[in-house]
Amino acid sequence: MKNYYLGIDLGGTNFKYGILDSISGIKEFRTSPIADIAYPDKAVDRIGGLVFELSKKHKIKSVGLGVPGLVDFRNGYIHSLTNLKRWKNLYFKKMLEEKIGLPVLIDNDANLAALAEHRLGSGKGSVNMLMVTLGTGVGGGLILNGEIYRGVNNAAGEIGHIPLNLNGPLCNCGGRGCLEAYIGNKRLLAYLNRRLKKEKSVLNNYNGQIELKDVSAAAQRGDVLSVGFWRYTAGKLAQALIGAVNLLNIDRIVIGGGISDAGIFLISPLREYLRCLAMDIQAKNVKIVKARFRGKAGIIGAGLLAKCQTGMEA
Amino acid sequence: MKNYYLGIDLGGTNFKYGILDSISGIKEFRTSPIADIAYPDKAVDRIGGLVFELSKKHKIKSVGLGVPGLVDFRNGYIHSLTNLKRWKNLYFKKMLEEKIGLPVLIDNDANLAALAEHRLGSGKGSVNMLMVTLGTGVGGGLILNGEIYRGVNNAAGEIGHIPLNLNGPLCNCGGRGCLEAYIGNKRLLAYLNRRLKKEKSVLNNYNGQIELKDVSAAAQRGDVLSVGFWRYTAGKLAQALIGAVNLLNIDRIVIGGGISDAGIFLISPLREYLRCLAMDIQAKNVKIVKARFRGKAGIIGAGLLAKCQTGMEA
Repeated sequence: MKNYYLGIDLGGTNFKYGILDSISGIKEFRTSPIADIAYPDKAVDRIGGLVFELSKKHKIKSVGLGVPGLVDFRNGYIHSLTNLKRWKNLYFKKMLEEKIGLPVLIDNDANLAALAEHRLGSGKGSVNMLMVTLGTGVGGGLILNGEIYRGVNNAAGEIGHIPLNLNGPLCNCGGRGCLEAYIGNKRLLAYLNRRLKKEKSVLNNYNGQIELKDVSAAAQRGDVLSVGFWRYTAGKLAQALIGAVNLLNIDRIVIGGGISDAGIFLISPLREYLRCLAMDIQAKNVKIVKARFRGKAGIIGAGLLAKCQTGMEA
Repeated sequence: MKNYYLGIDLGGTNFKYGILDSISGIKEFRTSPIADIAYPDKAVDRIGGLVFELSKKHKIKSVGLGVPGLVDFRNGYIHSLTNLKRWKNLYFKKMLEEKIGLPVLIDNDANLAALAEHRLGSGKGSVNMLMVTLGTGVGGGLILNGEIYRGVNNAAGEIGHIPLNLNGPLCNCGGRGCLEAYIGNKRLLAYLNRRLKKEKSVLNNYNGQIELKDVSAAAQRGDVLSVGFWRYTAGKLAQALIGAVNLLNIDRIVIGGGISDAGIFLISPLREYLRCLAMDIQAKNVKIVKARFRGKAGIIGAGLLAKCQTGMEA
């Protein structure tokens, strides 16, 4: 009987899971939302039930859990999670292990997305990798010397909070002029709307709320404002990435999340900026690529975490 | 007979050396400039002679060498050095080992200064440390998880080339608006002179060239412009450091080099900026301190490198 590893990705409103086998990586991959996770106790019961069900068919060896917030990886202590206010100061690893009788490993979801891309996705083969996830927030995860880099308080990786201008707009983090304060989804849409009031664009013919995917589609059809919009976004992102590349001499940057739909309209100017403005050796040795896994990166990363920590035996 | 480790710090115009013993760290510390290092061959002969002399009295086990430029630490291959144009594409480790018959380890001087501060200086006890050296250039070295972090091409640590503004002044690195383009010594003095033309200051009574140490002295005597000047410098430095702190969740920043003479006038506003504008957890857990070793950090780091790699036995 093969060994399997359960990967769970806890979101703000539901969680998703998948099963990794010990040889090929991902197998019998499944996701399904499970509601009612506002309460940690209920979540323990739910996960307990899930493990019980899955164990009828698979030999589950361990469980990896990705959470949206600050967690002490070494002892599985959750400090606080975004949008889940009851998940505070919990030894969740212990709570869950007592319920299911299996080893549980918990890490930040951005770290696990980076791990997934590094081991099985667009980061494969790199030594030092930065994963950037573009969305409402701008998240990040670092792989240094092949391993997740967590920092002294498990708070590392915050590429979204590299300040581009200390006199810039207020950021949700309390800082000023952070990357996220410019290219978080809402800030980008606000910027777009300001430009649409003054400039011509096919987007001005749209009825209803314009989304970023509309701007990508318009860019593809040659809309000048939309192409310029992605170039602007690339410029902001470039400033933070040039800093990271010069400081860390990484060999791969993986761009994930919604905005990365913009594809070549975002990534092509981004590459140009780095080639021109990052230090020569650093620029020559870094590749910028799109993420392979989309919503599944967190699940895969959680499964990999469980697997790496409990041995690779079949 | 005790074991000793020779640390050599190669500068642009001379080199300095010191001897570390295997127990107390630094012992029989000596520095002395040796000229004529433009030619790598001659440098090999000089170091050979030095080792021969020192070996009469001490049992030298190995040699560490810090160089101002890009070197592949793993095989001791020097790619290129600043201000030493003949030091290019050399297996200098091999050249030197053949001459002296002892193990030789070569690393970038900024990395070795960071190592010295981490093991024996102001970085002691930290896990993840950034060393910033303020001077003509703004250099940096990173210690992550207790070890020198070099990046994929041994080019990591360039805190001086975090861009503060991609539309800012051209930087020596080819980039734009880097930290160094604002607070490298010459840029700071140019900024100072612009302000002195418009504002009152005791510095306007000076005859001759004003140096940064004069600005520190004037600040100490309460000169408003001088205090403001260091606050400006702290603001620029803060932007780069907030980025590094948010991204890397380091627990120590060590400030070295000439400008750090400004002491509290630089470091106090710097701490304030980080407390206010870096992310909460990151800001709470990082200490900003002055470097302990001044011109000797490179020598001590080189000695430590030699010692760490060849065992700690007495």
